[in-house]
Amino acid sequence: MTGFVSFVGSGPGDPELLTLKAVDRLKRADAVLFDDLSAGPILEYARNGADLIGVGKRAGRASPKQDHVSRLLVDYAQIDQRVVRLKSGDGGLFGRLEEELVALKAAGIPYEIIPGIPSAVAAAAAIGIPLTRRLTARRVQFVTGHDVTGKLPGDVNLQALADPAASTVVFMGKRTFPALLEKLLAHGLPADTPAILAEDVSRPEQRITRATVSDLAEQLALEVGNSAALILYGPLAQEMP
Amino acid sequence: MTGFVSFVGSGPGDPELLTLKAVDRLKRADAVLFDDLSAGPILEYARNGADLIGVGKRAGRASPKQDHVSRLLVDYAQIDQRVVRLKSGDGGLFGRLEEELVALKAAGIPYEIIPGIPSAVAAAAAIGIPLTRRLTARRVQFVTGHDVTGKLPGDVNLQALADPAASTVVFMGKRTFPALLEKLLAHGLPADTPAILAEDVSRPEQRITRATVSDLAEQLALEVGNSAALILYGPLAQEMP
Repeated sequence: MTGFVSFVGSGPGDPELLTLKAVDRLKRADAVLFDDLSAGPILEYARNGADLIGVGKRAGRASPKQDHVSRLLVDYAQIDQRVVRLKSGDGGLFGRLEEELVALKAAGIPYEIIPGIPSAVAAAAAIGIPLTRRLTARRVQFVTGHDVTGKLPGDVNLQALADPAASTVVFMGKRTFPALLEKLLAHGLPADTPAILAEDVSRPEQRITRATVSDLAEQLALEVGNSAALILYGPLAQEMP
Repeated sequence: MTGFVSFVGSGPGDPELLTLKAVDRLKRADAVLFDDLSAGPILEYARNGADLIGVGKRAGRASPKQDHVSRLLVDYAQIDQRVVRLKSGDGGLFGRLEEELVALKAAGIPYEIIPGIPSAVAAAAAIGIPLTRRLTARRVQFVTGHDVTGKLPGDVNLQALADPAASTVVFMGKRTFPALLEKLLAHGLPADTPAILAEDVSRPEQRITRATVSDLAEQLALEVGNSAALILYGPLAQEMP
């Protein structure tokens, strides 16, 4: 059997933020399975004639079942295809990589993992701020704003997330941020902690909004939809001197 | 004035983990200032004739003063050079980016920030584990193991770092991990929490060591030197099914 799967982090969307290794694997793939967020110009690196299969979900929209994606990966590999599984950002950060790895292991299919630029890291670069500050922010944390049911996870460590000295990035948290913030304020996070909403980072439609955590929660409570967005708060969100 | 500085994250060391944008900027640079960890094959993408200036420090070794680096960036830009400032991993994660940004702002020099693959993200990919697990690890945190004096920072949030449900990565923490662990155990981290020591990730000499946090601390207490290493602990360090 010569089938092989490359899990490839595609970065936040700008094709120039692909790694050389990601481009190499795309050029050599027989089949590319991609999420909505890794579609578009990134797929232009795939060779002509490769199968391009969209298996993506956008937050809030119905999506193919996860076990259907795993099944497709196994099926392609078992007919000796070189498969690229594109995942936006880095696949290991809230990318549901685990389920697909487990399925390939169970089927005895060889694979590799190629890291990608995480959206949180790209967001900080786009905003022009370091995620860490040498004296004021020596801990960075990434959390997800929703669990598998789409709700705010019930078991988050609120003390850790309410620490005003940490840099925090909430992934996929637009809809649940008002509920999260209520708990964080109760755990001591100051209501005027600086925050940034970063949407569609590195894409032409990128939007960066600065506010305090409480103003941001108020604004988000009025919004519908749940676009790909990050919420950053803490010392990192302060303007630099 | 046409001088311009590109802060470029060079990733963990494997030149194939450079982004397309990083390679583009290296090819067009008149001068490249690099750390020890972003030296080697990565510099081969610089054009012939570019000034290549090592300003790096390795953990534990004397290094050029930080303000000397900022001064060099400003000087090159002020004589209209295109400068690339290479920083290993992602410059915004414990890369002391802030000081250099502030210096450029003060001098009125335009710049851009190009994100890189963080070493922690590359380590997880190399080990073959996702940093997050859908049900068991929904918070990831990165911390530094030493402050500007080389000691364990005195103000770390021990409750956050002792949370057995989070995935934690300690940067530059080999020397201080025994002292950190003592505090974490006192804050409830189980002594048999799985841990991984990842050294020289993505380089030919990469070494991955699995242990429990307490066995790892015992081993590190006996070591001298302080190579570029990450310590990962928590659910992410468990073997997958």
